[in-house]
Order: sequence, then C-alpha cells, then structure tokens
Amino acid sequence: MTAVSNPALSNSGLALAERLFDDLLAHTSDEPGVTRAAFGEGEDYAHRLMTEVGRELGLEIETDGVGNLYLTYAGQEPGLPGWIVGSHLDSVPHGGNFDGAAGVIAGLSVISTLKRRGVRPRRPITVMAIRAEESTWFPVSYLGSRAALGRLPADALVTARADTGETLAAHMAALGWRPEDIAAGRAHLRPERVHGFIEVHIEQGPVLEAEALPVGLVTAIAGSFRYRSARCLGEWGHSGAVPRGHRIDAVFGLADLVVALDAFWGSLEAEGQEATITVGQVATPTELHAFSKVPGEVAFCLDVRSRSADVLKRIEEELERVSADICRRRGVRFDWGERTGSQPAELDVALRRGLADAATAATIPFREMPSGAGHDTAAFSAAGIASALIFVRNQNGSHNPDEAMRLEDFGAAVDVLVRYFTDNASS
Amino acid sequence: MTAVSNPALSNSGLALAERLFDDLLAHTSDEPGVTRAAFGEGEDYAHRLMTEVGRELGLEIETDGVGNLYLTYAGQEPGLPGWIVGSHLDSVPHGGNFDGAAGVIAGLSVISTLKRRGVRPRRPITVMAIRAEESTWFPVSYLGSRAALGRLPADALVTARADTGETLAAHMAALGWRPEDIAAGRAHLRPERVHGFIEVHIEQGPVLEAEALPVGLVTAIAGSFRYRSARCLGEWGHSGAVPRGHRIDAVFGLADLVVALDAFWGSLEAEGQEATITVGQVATPTELHAFSKVPGEVAFCLDVRSRSADVLKRIEEELERVSADICRRRGVRFDWGERTGSQPAELDVALRRGLADAATAATIPFREMPSGAGHDTAAFSAAGIASALIFVRNQNGSHNPDEAMRLEDFGAAVDVLVRYFTDNASS
Repeated sequence: MTAVSNPALSNSGLALAERLFDDLLAHTSDEPGVTRAAFGEGEDYAHRLMTEVGRELGLEIETDGVGNLYLTYAGQEPGLPGWIVGSHLDSVPHGGNFDGAAGVIAGLSVISTLKRRGVRPRRPITVMAIRAEESTWFPVSYLGSRAALGRLPADALVTARADTGETLAAHMAALGWRPEDIAAGRAHLRPERVHGFIEVHIEQGPVLEAEALPVGLVTAIAGSFRYRSARCLGEWGHSGAVPRGHRIDAVFGLADLVVALDAFWGSLEAEGQEATITVGQVATPTELHAFSKVPGEVAFCLDVRSRSADVLKRIEEELERVSADICRRRGVRFDWGERTGSQPAELDVALRRGLADAATAATIPFREMPSGAGHDTAAFSAAGIASALIFVRNQNGSHNPDEAMRLEDFGAAVDVLVRYFTDNASS
Repeated sequence: MTAVSNPALSNSGLALAERLFDDLLAHTSDEPGVTRAAFGEGEDYAHRLMTEVGRELGLEIETDGVGNLYLTYAGQEPGLPGWIVGSHLDSVPHGGNFDGAAGVIAGLSVISTLKRRGVRPRRPITVMAIRAEESTWFPVSYLGSRAALGRLPADALVTARADTGETLAAHMAALGWRPEDIAAGRAHLRPERVHGFIEVHIEQGPVLEAEALPVGLVTAIAGSFRYRSARCLGEWGHSGAVPRGHRIDAVFGLADLVVALDAFWGSLEAEGQEATITVGQVATPTELHAFSKVPGEVAFCLDVRSRSADVLKRIEEELERVSADICRRRGVRFDWGERTGSQPAELDVALRRGLADAATAATIPFREMPSGAGHDTAAFSAAGIASALIFVRNQNGSHNPDEAMRLEDFGAAVDVLVRYFTDNASS
C-alpha cells in the first residue's frame, strides 16, 4: 500500500500528490489497510483535507446537500458548462489507500500543474470529491454521484450502514448534511451544465500490470445484480446420525450452487462473454452451528457483474434454474433477500478518442479496456453526460490492504489529463 | 422437545422420569432448546439434581476427580464386580433435553422399579452420570468416561472450551474438581471391577421412527476423524475486477471440496458402505470479507464418521487426493489445523443377546442397528469392558432444539433393563 517515492518528482505536480497520499494513509490507517467509511470518520477526514488543498490552490469551494465537495478552477469564460474530474474518498473496510482517493488527487494535481504552467482553459475545471461510492457501507450503487445528479431514489435514506445499522439519513444528519435534498430529488449538478466527466481510478484487476502499461482508457463499465443477504435453509441434525438420504444440508446446497455458477461462468467465458461471479461472504449461524451438527442454515452473498445486460440476464436465469434444481434434489430452500443492481454503461467515444490522442501526444502507452468494477463514472454516463474513465496500473488488486500503485503511473494519468486540457483549452 | 405425558404412567417408575425431564428443562432452558455446557452451569445443575434423587432412592453416592457421579444400588454380594448404567448430562449449545440425560434418568428409573418390586440382584448396579461427552465444548472424545477409566491423555487439560476459551483444567478447578487426577492418569474405574456397561440413549437419527420401533440394540459405534478449525486460503481481490483465470477464490475452493466429498460419499453408499460427512461450520472472516471482495479465506470444519476403520481411511485418502487437486487447479491452499478422531467400537455380542432376550420376553419390538454418533459406551468398550447401547426412538433428530422422545418409548427401554436385571439377578 506504499506509493513508490521518486525524488525526481519532488519539483513536479506529483509532490502534492505524494504529500496527500501520505497524509491520508497516516490519518485513515486501520491495520491491515485503511478504513474510510462512507459518512464516517475516515471519509470526512479526507474531505476536510481536500478542502484545505482547494484553499491552498485558490479554487472555488462548494458542497452540495449530501456532502459532495466541488473545487473549481475558474475558466476564461465562466458561463460555459465545465469539466468535472472526480472520484470518491471512501474506502472499503481495511481497503487500500488509492481506490477512489487517487482520482480526486489526480484532479488536484492536474489543476496545480495547469496553474503552474499558466494554462487556463476556456471552461472551468471542477475537482469533485464524491461521497459513499463503496456499496459495502450502504447497499446502494453510486450513492454520492447519483445524489448530486438528483437521481438517487428517496428510499436510499432508510438503508442501514452495514457496520453501524444506522440509516443513511441518520449518518448524513449527524454530519450536518441535508437528507431532505435527497428526499426532494434536488440536483446540485444539471447535466446540461456539465461539459464532460472524467474519473481517474486505479485498475482493480491485474490487466495493466500483466501487459506492462501505465494507463488504460475504459470503454464500458459493468452492471451488476446482487443478493447481499441470501440464505440457504436446510434442517439441523446430528452429524453422525442422519444418513445421506435423510439429510437437508444447507452447506451442501450452497456448495452445489457455487460449483454450478462457476461452471456456467466457465461456459460463458468459452463463448467469449465477460462476467464475474463472486460469493464473498459465507457464514453458518454462530449461535446454532456446531461441528457435530448437520448445518440447517448458511448465509451468503452473491455479486454478479458484466458489461453486457444480456449476459447478466442469462446468469440470473441460470441462477433460478440451478437453485430450483438444488431445492428439488436436496430439499433445501433459498431465501434470497433483497436484490440490488446497476445497469452497464457504455462510455463516450469522442471523449475517449480525445484522451487517446492526448496520451499518444504525451508518448504514454495505453490500452482500451472494460471495467468489471462499478465506478461513479457510470452514474454520470447514465445521466447523459459525456463521461470517461482512466485506469492507472496497480499491483495486488484493490479492496484489500495490499493494494499498491506506483506514483509514476499515477503521474502518467495526470500527464494525459494535463495534455488533454492544454490541447483542448479553447474548445 | 416435550415428552408426551401419559397419565397411565403416573404410578409407575416413569413418574420419576417425567419429573426429572421437566425439572431439567425448566432449569437448563436456553431458547431455542437447552444448554448444559460441559463443566458449566447446566451440566452442574443436572449433576446436583441426580445426586438429590440418588439420596431419595437411598443409593450410595460417589464422585471421582473429574466430577463424574456414581449412584449405587448395593448388590446382594457387595464384593462382586458391578453393572454400570450410565450416560452424560451435558448437551450441545441449544440442544435438546433428552440427549444424554435420558440414559442417566433411565438408570434411576430402573433402580427405582427394581426396589419397588423388591428385586435386589447379586451384583451392585451403579447409575453413572458422566461429564463432558459433547465434544462441541472441548475438542476431545468421551472426555468424562475416558477420565474415569484413567485413559484420558493429559494434554486434554490444556484444550480450551469453545465458548469461553478457558482450559479444561481451569474449568475443572473452578468447580472444585481435580485436574491432577487426569494429569496422573488416575482411574476411578478398574475394568476388572466392572461386570458390564449399558447406556440408554435417544437415537439421533430417523431410523427407529421410520420403522415404527420403540428401541434399538446397537451393534457398533462409529469412529471418526475431524478437522475442527480448517481453512481454505486464497487471495483477496476486487469482485468485479479480477477475471476468472486470475482468481484464487477460497469459497470456490471450499465448494469444490464439499461437492467432491459428497460425490465420494454417494459412491461409498452405492457400494453398501456406511459413513457420514459433515461440514457443520463455514465462515469467511468478518473483519476482512465484503460482498465486493473475492474471498481470500474461509474457515470450516469437517466431521467424518464410519463404523468401519477402513472406510474412514478411504475417505481420508480421498480428502487428500481431492484437496491436492483443488489446490493445483485453483491456486488455493488448505490449512487443516488439528486433527482429532476416535476408533470405531464393536459392542459385546453376549450382552446384546441378553438384552434382546429380555426385550423379547417383555414383548418389546426392537431391531439391531449401528450408531453413527459416538457415545460413552465406545470408551468403555475400548477399555475391554462388555458394553451395550440401547437406542430409544426419537423424533426430529438430536443436537437441535426440536428433539423429541415419547415417554412410553423411554419406558420401553427401562422395561428391557428391568427385565434383564430381574432375569439375571443371580448371575
């Protein structure tokens, strides 16, 4: 989780970035890793830190009702719709230091560099620090960005944060934000006032590392469907006394389901389709289970993602078919609980082409690639805003304490954006 | 968990049994079910209750260093090796009221009936209330009975109780018992002083219920091998960003294992072999897991039982083969933790024949059958003592709050024993 420090960078815009990453790590560390809970202490610290930097850089500072932060470098023509460069400042529990924060710090580094070089584009550039992107906390996708766009359903206010059990409304109110803005669907950002949205984010998979490329330009963001609190229910019994034919074993039922989904995933891959299927949490109930009992219950969650709405649909159909078959064979039943999900997003082709041109001009190697993970960019894209997502190479994946990112790779993404805004300063 | 009360029984030995079951339920209830922790409150209450009844019945009262209780109906010839009728008084957490306790109460009911009828056999009959049979508490098989026989390894003293984390030695000392007796291998019971051991126990499976028989005579008790704290270890990652080929998913690895063991179990059954395979507890680590993370770790336990040592060996070999294959294919690894186990026990043929004759004479229908569950009887059998185990029909299995037993079925087991001791009073 350490950014490799490079003394040669200390006079560039990366000195600011290095200082901010170090500061965040020092103040939100929660071994192993960092924890910046949505509407919690770590996220709030990060928002205060970015506000302070915005002040240092002389930017206009604004917040909206949900606590998103906007730091604006005024354009030559203040009335024009502006650019937004943004990402989120929360992290998963015991996550890494770069997931989310890198995008906000990239925006600030870009503005710092443009200012130092005396480049002031026609349009304003706003760095947006977004609240609550990690749906580990609240079971809602793109909470902060959808709220900014007035597109967050009001019922999100009564969802509970996974660790505290308190509602979103309660957490917002405790920090002085305005749940009523969400209830009213009040938009801080109007799509017609946003020229384009660009997010810089660490790649959360191994592709750029495997191909030795510093950055990637994302073509599409996966959609998802999720069952966060499903259970397989069987019948408790004595482990030594219930013969195989009499068992209704919840763990065996779940194992069947996992193996069947893995097999279907394999067959989709063989077809050339892209998806991910994850059962990230499993637990027999601690109050009732014992090594000497046939398990009568096991809780689990399921996270399925694909950039193809059709593939998502096929997996959900397979899930229904397979689980019905398991129920029939084993006598277990599945209690699925609430279903959540998000639609896949195709990103803006023209904006991506512009960024590709900038990367080429700056001699930074890159590839185009899809994103299996969801990102705030998807919410902007869904609102009809031209949107782009730049991945930065990252070692050891993300959502884990070992996440790593080289500062020079981060610098490559900053260089692409500096070049893009410089070359398009008058457009 | 209610014994069906029968007014017609109120003048028989079953009035005592009914009172004792009700008293135990009232004092060790822990909704759902009852909890009588080994060397804990519930077990201790049950021991005090049985001591009181021993006093009412005018029996000799003894305890040994580990807290086992001996209530003796003196024989006509006090010097002769005696009978022991016994079982345990602990339960699993949130278990049923009859598992264990029924055997002790059966012994007391038998003596009460013999006394009322004026039958006093040549040999003494001792009702033994055994400590700590449920290895849910301490990871040791037949703790109390092996300690009574001086056959419990001293290292059992440093095992920790699952709920408290305190050692056996500490729990014993807290109740005033003598860990040093176990350390010294001191035997309270010498096999040559025991004529025979008989345990009455509810059947923990559905066989007698399915065949409409009140009792069963057990031919053999299953042995076992167990991994109580195994883990499958993979690599944490972002659920949307790590493609299938790059994943090292601990839950997928465990699911493969469970499905493969189930398939092997099925093939053993097709061969006519008997075994049980149970994964009673599974859990991804709550501090690290998230629905949006590829799981890097899952804890589980494995309980394998068979009355054939050869079948146990074959399953363990299959476990090695399958887990090595999963590690190779998935990149996960298995950390098995401590292995515990017990040997299968063949029970005494002559004693079983005697009990069968008594059942036939009393016109009580029965069948011979194996026991998949372990019982203290196995420890007596392993010590070279002629041993028998009588199962009582029981609804809804055991090790669960819904365990049930009809008092008339319990009465049938008591009748078999009364008849046996009466017919063999002078042998």
